[in-house]
Amino acid sequence: MKKGEFELIARLTAKLRQRRRTILGPGDDCAILARPPAAQLITIDSVVEGVHFDLRWGSAEALGARALTVNLSDIAAMGGVPTACVINLAIRPGLGARFFDRLYAGLGGAADAAGVDLVGGNVTAGDALAITIALLGETGPRVLRRDAARAADEIFVTGTVGDAALGWRILAGKLRVRGAPRKFLIDRFLLPSARLSAGQCLARMSLAPVGRVNPPARIAARNRAARVAAIDLSDGLMQDLGHVLDRSGVAAEIDANAIPRSPAYRTVMGDDLELALSGGEDYELLFCLPPGHSPSALARRLGLPVTRIGKIVRGRGATLIGDDGVRTKIASRTAGWDQLRAQNS
Amino acid sequence: MKKGEFELIARLTAKLRQRRRTILGPGDDCAILARPPAAQLITIDSVVEGVHFDLRWGSAEALGARALTVNLSDIAAMGGVPTACVINLAIRPGLGARFFDRLYAGLGGAADAAGVDLVGGNVTAGDALAITIALLGETGPRVLRRDAARAADEIFVTGTVGDAALGWRILAGKLRVRGAPRKFLIDRFLLPSARLSAGQCLARMSLAPVGRVNPPARIAARNRAARVAAIDLSDGLMQDLGHVLDRSGVAAEIDANAIPRSPAYRTVMGDDLELALSGGEDYELLFCLPPGHSPSALARRLGLPVTRIGKIVRGRGATLIGDDGVRTKIASRTAGWDQLRAQNS
Repeated sequence: MKKGEFELIARLTAKLRQRRRTILGPGDDCAILARPPAAQLITIDSVVEGVHFDLRWGSAEALGARALTVNLSDIAAMGGVPTACVINLAIRPGLGARFFDRLYAGLGGAADAAGVDLVGGNVTAGDALAITIALLGETGPRVLRRDAARAADEIFVTGTVGDAALGWRILAGKLRVRGAPRKFLIDRFLLPSARLSAGQCLARMSLAPVGRVNPPARIAARNRAARVAAIDLSDGLMQDLGHVLDRSGVAAEIDANAIPRSPAYRTVMGDDLELALSGGEDYELLFCLPPGHSPSALARRLGLPVTRIGKIVRGRGATLIGDDGVRTKIASRTAGWDQLRAQNS
Repeated sequence: MKKGEFELIARLTAKLRQRRRTILGPGDDCAILARPPAAQLITIDSVVEGVHFDLRWGSAEALGARALTVNLSDIAAMGGVPTACVINLAIRPGLGARFFDRLYAGLGGAADAAGVDLVGGNVTAGDALAITIALLGETGPRVLRRDAARAADEIFVTGTVGDAALGWRILAGKLRVRGAPRKFLIDRFLLPSARLSAGQCLARMSLAPVGRVNPPARIAARNRAARVAAIDLSDGLMQDLGHVLDRSGVAAEIDANAIPRSPAYRTVMGDDLELALSGGEDYELLFCLPPGHSPSALARRLGLPVTRIGKIVRGRGATLIGDDGVRTKIASRTAGWDQLRAQNS
């Protein structure tokens, strides 16, 4: 680390508040964290200027908060409690101290709100601003996993899908939308929420124990007992569903009409499902439960709108069932949506 | 993550071997790690194409190994045992599957050698290849900290310093060196070692307990009992020493003649100390011990060459004492070495 970079990281981390679990925060070769009370979660994610965001789109504070939220969402999808993070900043020329102060104010605010300690950081030079965060979490006695979906499970999603993809298109100048829908869709992209308490609530409903240290055979046995599968919707509904199907070795039938779309989405897209199916970055949860849970009861429990969009069946891949009963087979990792678009628009 | 990026990370992580501590490896929203037996260490570091390396300089395998080693070195500097890591790859066009296979072969080899599980990853697009790794470790009952140096301590370094900076200059075409010194210096840059067992050995010699969860006042009290300070030499001897002095609130007197330089360094630089003082990336350890330890006894214990380079005194900053007894005060975070260069070359 060059001296200017060291000064920057020292400045940014000087004001951070640490919780009791953090024995030693930023400033040494490593941070020291107290022994956690349970099994741990770890994830890493990155937001890159020119790929995931443009600095003209929103405030530095919102960008900082969003960079942490995309990681928090991964902890939410496991049903965990986020605890501590380390941050790597790749910085480019032209960004001053005030920008980084604001970025870290947003980051620190989101960390505080989620109970996360920001315990270490690193700064390198680069051609574009990139914020890479590794986030730790703790599990309760149960976790949500992608490999836990079983035939006959019902598939649910929280909130609505496709909004963030529309917000991105508006911000990128690819789409013109006015008034309230514009603000709603942009905010859905710039200011996502991680569904932490919903994930924790679903984990409490699961029968899948975390275990301590398990040889592979016992892991496999335990997986069969797992009954709540979940994933966060970062890459798009059908692609993320595909990850669950692949990992669980099952197929899905999705009711096209049931896919939850916001009024703003319908204002812009009408009945076109394309972005609801393929647009990412909504950071809602998709989860699979054995039959017997009504969406309204789940919504009360999770504190979020919940929609049943289909069911898990034996086989491979996802089938979309349209208005007219037409079934469209979707390869779980299909690259394009032209076929669907033609059918639904 | 786009589909191609998902396929890449799945391909790269498919062959990884996991240890028993890893309950769930790559492929879900988070990895799950068993509850660790002790307090934990966490660090994050990044190597960026065009900033830290050039792909023409060495093999993809060596680059992968080096990306992990710079993180392992931070765990070594705390006296810890590395356990698990997550990796963020920023990839650019023009790098094929074979390149990434080789990069991960190097990374996986270094991870295996250090007992580290590679438990998760993320891939994003970018303008340059960047490998960012967050590494977890476990502490024993004692740790090494930067804030543990006390007046009268003696200052030691392992190995030699300045070699990697010369290797970098040779690779970057800024310096022409032939024969054996060329290979030695380049290897010191491309193939560094993390001094893990030396760090663990030093931690066992320390009186600084890790504690579990400590309120700030008790941390402060415990720090006074800490008796082995250490840091890894990533940024250059004087800058890294400066971090120890700043964090410990002490000063240092360094014997210029004692600074350990390799025969290759002396062949190229003669008596010029500049790069031995300011050149980074050697990944040796600098540590401070109360008087009473001979370098030869320490070398036997640590299994590495050890040189005593000076002592900790009261005050601020570092003073370099030259051949002729001339004392040169070095601000702990001084930016340039022109004054020193003039004096020593």
